[in-house]
Amino acid sequence: MTARHEHIADELRRAIDREEYTVGSRLPSEAELAAHYGVSRGTVRQAVAALTAEGLIGSRQGARRVVLAGRRSQSFAELRSFAQWAQAMGREATGRVMGQEYRPATAEDAVRLQLREGIPVLNVLRVRGLDGEPVLLERTVYADWISPAVETIEPDCPSVTQRLYHDTGLVFAYGEHVIDAVAAGAQDAALLGIRRTSPLLRVRRITTTREGRPVEWSDDRYRSDAVSFSVHNSTGNNALARNTAE
Amino acid sequence: MTARHEHIADELRRAIDREEYTVGSRLPSEAELAAHYGVSRGTVRQAVAALTAEGLIGSRQGARRVVLAGRRSQSFAELRSFAQWAQAMGREATGRVMGQEYRPATAEDAVRLQLREGIPVLNVLRVRGLDGEPVLLERTVYADWISPAVETIEPDCPSVTQRLYHDTGLVFAYGEHVIDAVAAGAQDAALLGIRRTSPLLRVRRITTTREGRPVEWSDDRYRSDAVSFSVHNSTGNNALARNTAE
Repeated sequence: MTARHEHIADELRRAIDREEYTVGSRLPSEAELAAHYGVSRGTVRQAVAALTAEGLIGSRQGARRVVLAGRRSQSFAELRSFAQWAQAMGREATGRVMGQEYRPATAEDAVRLQLREGIPVLNVLRVRGLDGEPVLLERTVYADWISPAVETIEPDCPSVTQRLYHDTGLVFAYGEHVIDAVAAGAQDAALLGIRRTSPLLRVRRITTTREGRPVEWSDDRYRSDAVSFSVHNSTGNNALARNTAE
Repeated sequence: MTARHEHIADELRRAIDREEYTVGSRLPSEAELAAHYGVSRGTVRQAVAALTAEGLIGSRQGARRVVLAGRRSQSFAELRSFAQWAQAMGREATGRVMGQEYRPATAEDAVRLQLREGIPVLNVLRVRGLDGEPVLLERTVYADWISPAVETIEPDCPSVTQRLYHDTGLVFAYGEHVIDAVAAGAQDAALLGIRRTSPLLRVRRITTTREGRPVEWSDDRYRSDAVSFSVHNSTGNNALARNTAE
């Protein structure tokens, strides 16, 4: 039998999944939750501790706790690999290379990766899954100097980021992301198991080393029914704003 | 006749619009740009200064400058109103209320805005435009204590944020955003002048005062062919990550 606090924790997880409590909103107080579920405040406290450990809710602010993340929301506060994010949320990340080949760097590759047009760079098409379900299609181009290390990674490696760190010491330090929405094309639809023209969340990113050297750029398309992103921001604390005042 | 450097600035703006240079990538060096356009480095420098002032590119890093924003990209580094963002990019923001009415706060409104279910809150449906073209549909619910001030604002006010600051001293300080993609519904399509099922970028946000008091929550839908968002992040500098280690 499931302990009472585990049952309450699961109820709260499901309420967050259903977006009854959305990112940034506050949970009811312990007293209110105890009354709602007909349990003691100690039981509520145990359930809340589990969700805090999972990163779903934050520490106490006044009587109540803020919802930090939905289980389908990936925070942009930190650069995290897909595998790291999945792991933090207690879900299993999978990956599968559907195709990879060297192609001459296009003009676009050359600008984004800071290399010469025409030199061979590894292009990888990869499907990523959560708990076995395909949710993300990555079309990634790797810089020439890292391409050989990527090429030899097995096709179902769950975390390329971790593997590259392990094999070469490479650290992905910074990410620049441009986010928009696109309609699924034929290949997107086939590989993600969705209908053509379904809305996809597209994140185009360039990831660099700590020194600012581009490692890869990628066109990532997320099934919108499976993943969203969360961003917290505030007024006037921004490097961009300072730059524009130059 | 347009000055040579204005012509070059315009060429560069268009290249950024066409995403030849994407957010996070670097412009060619001054010497390369001078050679490409057949002008002096002084002329290039003038053109680059104009784009820096507009916030499109950053300060020099080594020989080259980083592209900070596309003209259709809204940075999430800072909480900015739609009008502020448009203005920073040299574009004109417009707004038009298509409907507003008091409705009893739903359970969702109550959680997000920290108020009692059933009390009357102002619901506003607003179309926002860039240079006269509709690009954003906002469905906003205002907290009861600010609703009367919003209700009296004229329907085509270009910046509600600025108006509320002017009228009441209210400062929007923090934003929590959840981003995903949705297919345009019938009302979305009609008001944005697009086809039903077109992909829209959806941003659901809660905006709060400096004290963390929620002012409004909104379901914002952006035409993806007109606006995107940009985010810069890095590894391990994240409050969320620290929270999860509690």
